[in-house]
Amino acid sequence: MFFEGSEKKFEIVIDNRVDLLSYDISFWKNLVAHSRAEIISQIENPKIKAFLLSESSLFVFKDKILMITCGNTILANALDYLIKEIGKDRIRSLIFQRKNEYFSRLQKTSFFDDIKILKDHFGNEHGKAFRLGLQDTHHNYLYQYQNHFKADPSDKTFEFLMYHISKNASDFLRKQNQTSEDVRKFLMLDKNFPGFVIDDFVFNPYGYSMNMIKDDRYATIHITPQEDSSYISFETNIEKELIVFNGVNGLMEALQPSCFDIIQYNFNGELNVSSNYLKVDQVIHEIDGGYTTKFYFYAKAIENPRSPVELV
Amino acid sequence: MFFEGSEKKFEIVIDNRVDLLSYDISFWKNLVAHSRAEIISQIENPKIKAFLLSESSLFVFKDKILMITCGNTILANALDYLIKEIGKDRIRSLIFQRKNEYFSRLQKTSFFDDIKILKDHFGNEHGKAFRLGLQDTHHNYLYQYQNHFKADPSDKTFEFLMYHISKNASDFLRKQNQTSEDVRKFLMLDKNFPGFVIDDFVFNPYGYSMNMIKDDRYATIHITPQEDSSYISFETNIEKELIVFNGVNGLMEALQPSCFDIIQYNFNGELNVSSNYLKVDQVIHEIDGGYTTKFYFYAKAIENPRSPVELV
Repeated sequence: MFFEGSEKKFEIVIDNRVDLLSYDISFWKNLVAHSRAEIISQIENPKIKAFLLSESSLFVFKDKILMITCGNTILANALDYLIKEIGKDRIRSLIFQRKNEYFSRLQKTSFFDDIKILKDHFGNEHGKAFRLGLQDTHHNYLYQYQNHFKADPSDKTFEFLMYHISKNASDFLRKQNQTSEDVRKFLMLDKNFPGFVIDDFVFNPYGYSMNMIKDDRYATIHITPQEDSSYISFETNIEKELIVFNGVNGLMEALQPSCFDIIQYNFNGELNVSSNYLKVDQVIHEIDGGYTTKFYFYAKAIENPRSPVELV
Repeated sequence: MFFEGSEKKFEIVIDNRVDLLSYDISFWKNLVAHSRAEIISQIENPKIKAFLLSESSLFVFKDKILMITCGNTILANALDYLIKEIGKDRIRSLIFQRKNEYFSRLQKTSFFDDIKILKDHFGNEHGKAFRLGLQDTHHNYLYQYQNHFKADPSDKTFEFLMYHISKNASDFLRKQNQTSEDVRKFLMLDKNFPGFVIDDFVFNPYGYSMNMIKDDRYATIHITPQEDSSYISFETNIEKELIVFNGVNGLMEALQPSCFDIIQYNFNGELNVSSNYLKVDQVIHEIDGGYTTKFYFYAKAIENPRSPVELV
């Protein structure tokens, strides 16, 4: 059973004339429905509302919305709806990101289709689109639009995307009747992220999603454990490098990916990667609005020849 | 200007009731037209006819046809036509191979579309399809059908696929009014493949294709030198490892790829690869008809961060 774990994501910062936290749940349900996903649960504190979706996550802050969807969703349609609802003049910053897919042909839209919608809103002369990484292997597409915007120094993002986890990890995560408690323990979440409130869900027959929040910080994990196409994403805005790298090393230890990507926005430190992995790609991108984006792709040398995969 | 260099390829062995070398040129023109390519030139000797195509190459032997096409051609349509013309009962072995594309979404068909045509001919229970390598990065799709066939011991193939060649090599190959003489010298062809008759062509504004033959042996090179999506393929049935590896090392030296794939059919030796490259993937596949297929993917550690690619 193939499932496309790779995500599309947008982050929108709006002016402070209204407080997004005051919006009713029906607004967010509607937004999410436009991407063809739905809300399955919610946690909140005075700074963040965190929604777990049928395909990934939505985070709402006072003046910021971060939405991540995977599978066969069309995030660009939700974004289109949101821009119309909010009014494009109120948008100070928009970043739309799309990771390379396992099967791009199976997706309902391409990145180029998606940004046509954005170009219709912002005009050709404003937004800019980039590819970080090589087309034939791991890469990320990025569209960005800024309107007299300067990112807050505390506005940092760290993304860690693992591919082809170990057989042990894949077997454990696909165990029948797996519980969220056991997955949390396996990923060392409570140990490595103390004080965070967690909302998580084990899908049937397998798959796991988790949001956690603490004050204005969030982290989210989405697991597609399929043996031939496993994909696990971790994303956070936690500022402290020590906590992030500790958490990431915990995930690396538990999951043992064959290769992984790192994407950083204004996150300065560089993960100390074990010498088993080779840095195959690195892109540094200074984008408007004071964001520096870094993309890394690491791969491990193969030890034993793999078998071919028979296709039906 | 993007051009999809990655190839589809088929190799068909038929029974010996007729001699394919006796077929008229109009038959091959028609075959090639079914893939949406055309013949641009031809060389031959008593064992092989070698056609240079607008998109890659066609080789005809007494009882074997090897056709390779790139770009936006539909090789499966040519194959469909050929099976009907020859009659499926006369086919002893068919291998259809498709390399991962830079932009699979831009292709007119997917591998899964292609093999639907083959399954219609041979039935679901006969042909088998495989993927060699990981879906998210370099890989090869393979369909194979054999009918009481055992490969001849001298039937060996070595494919060497280079991605992201050095800026110097890309600049040289995209030089205005580049000549085939200079490209041949740059690739050290005359030096490394003595005694072969060469037929080559420089495309406008750039791109290079070459067939060479000597007795029943061929080699072919196709170059897409575009800076952000360069792709160069080398394929041969030369049996002698020393000659093949010497030729491959000459190409490696001239082109300095960031990464490369090797695909071998019944070719035993393993290329001695410089320690700059890491073996990221290796698949060994024993297929019916006595073929052992090996797939290797090597990548180089990145030295200096790359820049993002702006998309228009």
